[in-house]
Amino acid sequence: MFLKAPKRSNCLLGCLSCTTAEKMSHVVKKRKLDKSRQDRLYFDSYTDVTIHEEMIADHVRTNTYRMAIMRNSESIRGKVVLDVGAGTGVLSIFCAQAGAKKVYAVEACSIAEQAVKIVKQNNMEDKIEVIRGTVETVDLPEKVEVIVSEWMGYALLHESMLNSVLYARDKWLQPGGIILPSKAELYIAPISDPVVEDRLHFWYTLKDQYGVDMSCMSDFATRCIMNSDITVNSVTVEDVLSHPARLAELDLHSVTVEELLRSVKGKFRCESFGSAAVNAFCVYFTVTFPCPDKPLVLSTSPFKPETHWKQAVLYLDAPVDVVQDTVVTGEVSMYPSEESARHICIHVDYTIGEHKRQSRTFSIPDWSSEAQP
Amino acid sequence: MFLKAPKRSNCLLGCLSCTTAEKMSHVVKKRKLDKSRQDRLYFDSYTDVTIHEEMIADHVRTNTYRMAIMRNSESIRGKVVLDVGAGTGVLSIFCAQAGAKKVYAVEACSIAEQAVKIVKQNNMEDKIEVIRGTVETVDLPEKVEVIVSEWMGYALLHESMLNSVLYARDKWLQPGGIILPSKAELYIAPISDPVVEDRLHFWYTLKDQYGVDMSCMSDFATRCIMNSDITVNSVTVEDVLSHPARLAELDLHSVTVEELLRSVKGKFRCESFGSAAVNAFCVYFTVTFPCPDKPLVLSTSPFKPETHWKQAVLYLDAPVDVVQDTVVTGEVSMYPSEESARHICIHVDYTIGEHKRQSRTFSIPDWSSEAQP
Repeated sequence: MFLKAPKRSNCLLGCLSCTTAEKMSHVVKKRKLDKSRQDRLYFDSYTDVTIHEEMIADHVRTNTYRMAIMRNSESIRGKVVLDVGAGTGVLSIFCAQAGAKKVYAVEACSIAEQAVKIVKQNNMEDKIEVIRGTVETVDLPEKVEVIVSEWMGYALLHESMLNSVLYARDKWLQPGGIILPSKAELYIAPISDPVVEDRLHFWYTLKDQYGVDMSCMSDFATRCIMNSDITVNSVTVEDVLSHPARLAELDLHSVTVEELLRSVKGKFRCESFGSAAVNAFCVYFTVTFPCPDKPLVLSTSPFKPETHWKQAVLYLDAPVDVVQDTVVTGEVSMYPSEESARHICIHVDYTIGEHKRQSRTFSIPDWSSEAQP
Repeated sequence: MFLKAPKRSNCLLGCLSCTTAEKMSHVVKKRKLDKSRQDRLYFDSYTDVTIHEEMIADHVRTNTYRMAIMRNSESIRGKVVLDVGAGTGVLSIFCAQAGAKKVYAVEACSIAEQAVKIVKQNNMEDKIEVIRGTVETVDLPEKVEVIVSEWMGYALLHESMLNSVLYARDKWLQPGGIILPSKAELYIAPISDPVVEDRLHFWYTLKDQYGVDMSCMSDFATRCIMNSDITVNSVTVEDVLSHPARLAELDLHSVTVEELLRSVKGKFRCESFGSAAVNAFCVYFTVTFPCPDKPLVLSTSPFKPETHWKQAVLYLDAPVDVVQDTVVTGEVSMYPSEESARHICIHVDYTIGEHKRQSRTFSIPDWSSEAQP
């Protein structure tokens, strides 16, 4: 017997799993949290180095932002920039390197203290001003011409940090100013997760191995594993069963906070590549940076190099067999959970081939809001 | 930016990390818990399939118990057995296969419902009686001649489930009865954890990679990574810097709950194999089963095949260089944490070579007790 304990992963990008949380999420009763407590817990979660280490070590993320900022140097040179949720300040430094006249690096969490040191170490105190606070409360001495932010959470909207970017846009961005990135898109595809199949099959292997028939555990295992938690996992190309369908597009220049709160919706239609058992949907996103030549895309697609966002996996109650060209249609809506506005819920209505329409609502087990402050 | 969310690992035995918990443990203020709440949270943590899957999939664990029970069939045949914390009931079935007349499978958690099904599926309802409850409260119709239990937690004593085994021994074991396993031993060795070195070095690599000097982050990273959390990690043989020293031995026939509560203590002395930087201690355990021919040992040593317990890693404040034959001495005491009696604290006083004596107290960030019921 053992009670799971926090363990450090040996693989920064591959293995930051959280099975304790996973398990405890079955234990813990959800409850509403007041906004201030949600925020405190949210910002506190960025006080450890691991999360910043993982984000900066994500080459796809960091390199794409760097390239996007450098390629926009004409729009940034001599301009005033606002970095929303600056963290360690790395994006602010990229902007200063791209010629920004001034960068306001707004960061609510104590990592801002490290950002100050890093700015100093790079001799950019004259160009970059780290401001500790939320973008909703800080007071900037001037309006800005550029907003840069790395605000994307799991399944794009988990954390609802985009709200803060939109707030900053409406309050601080000059007319005609630019936002990096300027567009976000959500995609979905049916997948077959072999790990789940192996885990369910496991209970049938024990009779041969130990002489104990434990196959009756597979029902219980199915209920536990194929639950309505949003699972963040790396989906391999071979497991994607159709061309992904685009669910929704958010134009960061025009989308409103109200639209995000009401819910981000989209219909989809996919056709299966071949015969397989669908046991989940995979949801992922891309964000696009405007560039003088051609737009630059940061993609978290399973068909592209892995990022720390991996993909959001939504399990069906039970696997459904499909053959080539089986049509999978549905509608997805994403909205903030009732327990914590920072946590996303994903509701999926789907029809697979001739099967009757199914519905399921998924959410990310809310660790921060369940901790005892 | 992203707030870590629970993620399912692709590797059941290798990657059950818990970075959310790790991070949140910095956020959450500890507080005392009443015993009943501790117990509820503790038993609730066994309601998910993952934990049972991982334990049964641990071949070293499951095979060693099976062999130990089979080799003790002479002591078990025709006898009455008590399985303390039976879980899915696999050990009870091994005992029935070894010829037990009757097995009382006592399990407090709802997994007991699965144990009932498994017993039925193996046609052993006549031999095995699954009893839902804690061993402290259940009433058995008779005394037993054998107690079997898989009670070991991280660093052996995390969870303090041994207390329940000792309670069962004093209340239900007949004089001259046997306990499987009957002995537990704790070991310690200085190690060099290269993952930590790589993580600290990471901040020096960013200047070349992105043109941003972030080396000043390494102090912050050191404070975050080399903290006083007990980290459960796989220590590779190459990283062990001396012969492990035995800290303590517990004879399950004679040790008392009072002795466990007062603290399990031990002195150690190690001599370094060669030149290296010590940045942690590794603590692990073995348990021994009496067998007619020779005792059978279940070892969680880094020199033996990996188990799901891996090893408990205790980080120093800062690395200390050693050369061949550098003497590392100290004293370790393990005792229940003040916040939750089920959670272990490990206090280490140590002296490395000519360096002055250091002290540090480690604990496993207590997830269950921080969750909101």
